[in-house]
This record gives sequence, structure tokens and C-alpha cells, in this order.
Amino acid sequence: MRALIVDGERVRIVDVPSHAPGPGEAVVRVTRAGVCATDLEIVRGYMGFRGILGHEFCGVVESSPDPAWTGRRVVGEINCACGSCPTCRAGRPTHCPGRTVMGIQGRDGAFAERIVLPLANLHAVPDGVSDEAAVFTEPLAAACEVLEQVPIRPTDRVVVLGLGRLGQLVVRVLALTGAQVLGVGRSHLGLLPPGVGAVAADDVDGLDLADIVVECTGAPGGLAIASGLVRPRGTLVLKSTVHQPAPPPVTGWVLNEITVVGSRCGPFPPALRLLASGLVDPRPLVHAVLGLSDGAAALAEAGRPGVLKVLLDPAR
Amino acid sequence: MRALIVDGERVRIVDVPSHAPGPGEAVVRVTRAGVCATDLEIVRGYMGFRGILGHEFCGVVESSPDPAWTGRRVVGEINCACGSCPTCRAGRPTHCPGRTVMGIQGRDGAFAERIVLPLANLHAVPDGVSDEAAVFTEPLAAACEVLEQVPIRPTDRVVVLGLGRLGQLVVRVLALTGAQVLGVGRSHLGLLPPGVGAVAADDVDGLDLADIVVECTGAPGGLAIASGLVRPRGTLVLKSTVHQPAPPPVTGWVLNEITVVGSRCGPFPPALRLLASGLVDPRPLVHAVLGLSDGAAALAEAGRPGVLKVLLDPAR
Repeated sequence: MRALIVDGERVRIVDVPSHAPGPGEAVVRVTRAGVCATDLEIVRGYMGFRGILGHEFCGVVESSPDPAWTGRRVVGEINCACGSCPTCRAGRPTHCPGRTVMGIQGRDGAFAERIVLPLANLHAVPDGVSDEAAVFTEPLAAACEVLEQVPIRPTDRVVVLGLGRLGQLVVRVLALTGAQVLGVGRSHLGLLPPGVGAVAADDVDGLDLADIVVECTGAPGGLAIASGLVRPRGTLVLKSTVHQPAPPPVTGWVLNEITVVGSRCGPFPPALRLLASGLVDPRPLVHAVLGLSDGAAALAEAGRPGVLKVLLDPAR
Repeated sequence: MRALIVDGERVRIVDVPSHAPGPGEAVVRVTRAGVCATDLEIVRGYMGFRGILGHEFCGVVESSPDPAWTGRRVVGEINCACGSCPTCRAGRPTHCPGRTVMGIQGRDGAFAERIVLPLANLHAVPDGVSDEAAVFTEPLAAACEVLEQVPIRPTDRVVVLGLGRLGQLVVRVLALTGAQVLGVGRSHLGLLPPGVGAVAADDVDGLDLADIVVECTGAPGGLAIASGLVRPRGTLVLKSTVHQPAPPPVTGWVLNEITVVGSRCGPFPPALRLLASGLVDPRPLVHAVLGLSDGAAALAEAGRPGVLKVLLDPAR
């Protein structure tokens, strides 16, 4: 099958044998895959990953240990945990120290015609959710993770800093809380959903301090800017995984008693519910759909400033 | 009166006029004052403070807007808030943007024969608490602040990194939760209270990861070490105010979904209760009591590695 691999700092399309599934694993034919900022960081050397890139996908089960799954449309959680270590038994399988992570760490990813994943990682996509929406499940789950970690009240004032791929989803999820949500960014202010305040990045100095600030810039300097927007005893949520972030203002965090919450992967079921109900519609975020053969170009396109979600269609 | 002032990077004893109290302010004769790591950082340039140093004290009220306070033994909260701004009205007076802070920011401190403070900042010292214990109220309140911010359960595993002045108090407060508390430090392991595990700083690599790590080293590199000791989704509390901390492992915080909590001043009433009940006895932490005239020497002594609490007695 064709697959997009990263090897050092090179990205290329290669023909590789399809993987044979191991015990408990299913084979999924990928129908759509999404390019994420983390993919671009990996190409720059983050995580030192080598192999097939990609961790956002939807597809159709071709084979499975449980035949009932064959032919179903699915999305897949990216962390493959051991299930038996103390961390897994404590209910934190996404942090299993022995985990592999699809397209990120020790396991091939979804920029390919097929992907092999544990059946336990798969979630069925509801009928009303298109492939083009379902492929957003993984980043939408990451947006939901903010609410798993930080209670947001309807009276809170929330700033989402960075209106790229992830920031747009975080804005949409947090706006559902009834809180006053402001999106701050250099572009895509027009894509913000109704009721969300739009603030140009250059106007950030005039903002009142927020109870909660979510840093989604993906830029090395974003954390320092975000730190300046949160009120004393407020909460700063870090969603960006930047290869080399700028040193943050730690002393200010102590003086202002800021809580800083690192936030990564989130729960798939609520993300699928938000897609099925239509409460979150990610489709306006699609910038382009390219064939797998154009994978290198897709990554380059996704890396251009202001470009939102680039999807890959392995059938093309 | 005699006072120890910091002026740029110089510290000296001077004779200054006693301050006249403003509306609502009391005059307190200082009987004991304590040297804190923050004082040493201020001498190095932190906060750019100039004036009378010192923010840990106990004393006797000489004059007060309410005569009932005259002659009482008191300790005093260090933040003087406006009481009327949105931050104060939201219940966060210690973060009032217009605040002055005794011996730290815009207000003279306690390394003097007398100090002027708003009566609202004073707390009466219970009869059974000696001056030498009461002078620890402020740092003990800062230790209590950890529990104000982070719920600690009896089944948690807690590491306190740094067993200096503040770390020793944090250990004592957190041990009261019933949690498994480990103190990690270069010295003073023998001062840890019964039931608290003692781990030499050099043996830190072998430790199991902790649910909660409290960083009390006061050293630029402490935050990075503390980050390596906390489990995924655990909490890292920052107590050190270091003038120039080393850049922390922010990407690791995101990957491991660490919560980082900046922690500063705390509530005086529980600290006074812990002293009165004897649940916390800080007196073994006293390294020396010097006269105010020896203030510069006291600061130098407090700055020596491994030296715990140096107290000043202005009557000497």
C-alpha cells in the first residue's frame, strides 16, 4: 500500500506492505486523514518519530477480531496502552509509559491506505456524521479534554489564544458552556461561531484579564502572551506542543498564583456526540482535500500561515 | 528608630524617623522578625524593592485606631489591598493590582524597631504561642496555601522538594493530611517530623512518581527536577520565587498533562491554629537569633547553604 513516511526530516510517499494485524487488532481502510500541527512538529524533529505519519483519520473496518465490526465506519483513539501497568490500572491509559501512539511514537500512523489498530481503540461513527466531519473527532476530543480538566462556569470569561486548527475547535466546545468566550488570533476571526467575541492578535493588550486562557497558538512565544492575559488565581491551559517553546514567566505564575494545566488527548465519545448533534460543525475548517500521493504537498500547504485543516483522501 | 534598608544591592542599618500611621493603621513594636529566601532574592534585585526589608514578624501593638488592640501581641498579613477594586471585590485581596506588600513592594517592612500596618492586617497571637513560634505565622500560612489550592487526599503520594525554611513547614502541614509525604533535600533530613520519608537529593532518580510535588528549593534548577518527579496528570506546586529560574520542560507538562500551580501567600488563621494546637512546631527550625544591628550579618548567615531560620530581635 502507499503511505507517507517521515524519516529524519524527510517526508515521502513509499509503497510498503500492509501490516498484518496482531492479536486484538483490526485493519481499517482509511477514507480521510487530517494534518495536524503535531505532524508538522514531528517532521521538524519533535518526538524523533520515524515511520508512517498521521493520527487523525476515519475509515472502514476491513477485518477485525470481532466480525460485527467489519464494514463499520470508525475513528480511532491514538494511544495504544498496555492495560496492565499501574498507570493503566489507575485509569490513565493515555499516559501508559509503555504506550505506542499512532503516527507519533512507536506505531505507524494514518497517512496510508490502511491502518492497524487495537479494536479497543475504535469508535463507531454515527450515521449522520460525514467522513469529512468524523475525521475531526481526534482534535475535537482534544478540545473536549479542556473541560475534562478545568471546570468552566457560565459566568467565566475565557480567552482562546490562537485560532488555527485546534483553537477553532476549542472555541466551539468552550462556547457551549455559556461562558463569555473570546477568540484571539491573527486570522480566521470570521470563522468564529455566533456569540464568540473576535479579537485581533494585535489588540490583545487592551483586553481585560480572563478567568481561563487556553493557549492554542502552536508558536514558541504563545505561552508568554497567554500568561499576560490570565487574571490572578486564574487558569492557563496549554494545548500547544511546540518543539522548542520560549521560557515562560514562571515567577509571574507564582506571584499571581496561576494554575497552568497541560492538556493533550481527550475522550472520543463526547466528541462524536457533539458531531452527531451538530452542536459542533467542523466542516468550515476544511481548507483542502488532497490525494495521498500529494501528501508532501499537503504537509507543506498545512504549514503555510493561516491554513486550517488539510485532509488526505487515500483513494485519490 | 533603627531599620535595615535595602537600596539597590546594598543592605545597611540606618536611623529613620518612625512612620506616622495613616487612617486605619496601627503601629506595632517588632519583637521578632524572620529572614526569608524572598528577602535574599530582593537583595539580589528581585522586585526592585528599596526601603525597609522584612515581612515576617511578630510584635506588640503600640497604637491603633481601635484602642482594644493596644498592647496585644500580633502578627500581620503582608499584602495591603485597596479593598474596592474588582480583584478585591472578587475575594482576591492578596492579588489587588494596587496593593503594597510589606518589605517587598511599595511599603516598608519589619526589619525595624516598629512597623506601621493597617489594623485589618493584624491577627492576635494566642497566649500559648511564643514570639519565636509566632514569627513563623507568615511562612506557615504560605505552606497552608498549598492546601487552599490543591486538594490532597490521604491516599496521595506527595514529594516536597527542598527542605529549607519553607520546605520544612510545607512538609509539616502536608503530613497532617495523612498522605504519604516524602521530603527530598540536601540537608536537614534529620529535622523531618515522624512519619515523613527522608530522601537525599542525590537519590531522587530512584523515586516512584508522585501525585503531588511541591517545589520549595528556591533554586533556579528546582523546577526541572520537580517536573521529573510528578506522575502523568499529577500536580506540581511552585512555592519558590526565584529571580531567574531555568526554563522549565513545558512540552513535557503538555504531554503528561501536568497541572502546575503557582502558590504564594496564605491564610493566617489556620496557621495560628496549627501553632496554638502544637500540630506544627516550627521552633526546631530556628538557626540563630541576632540583634537588628547585626541585620546585614543575619542576611549573610541566612544566605549560607543549609542555614534555616535566622531571626532578628530589634530589642538587642
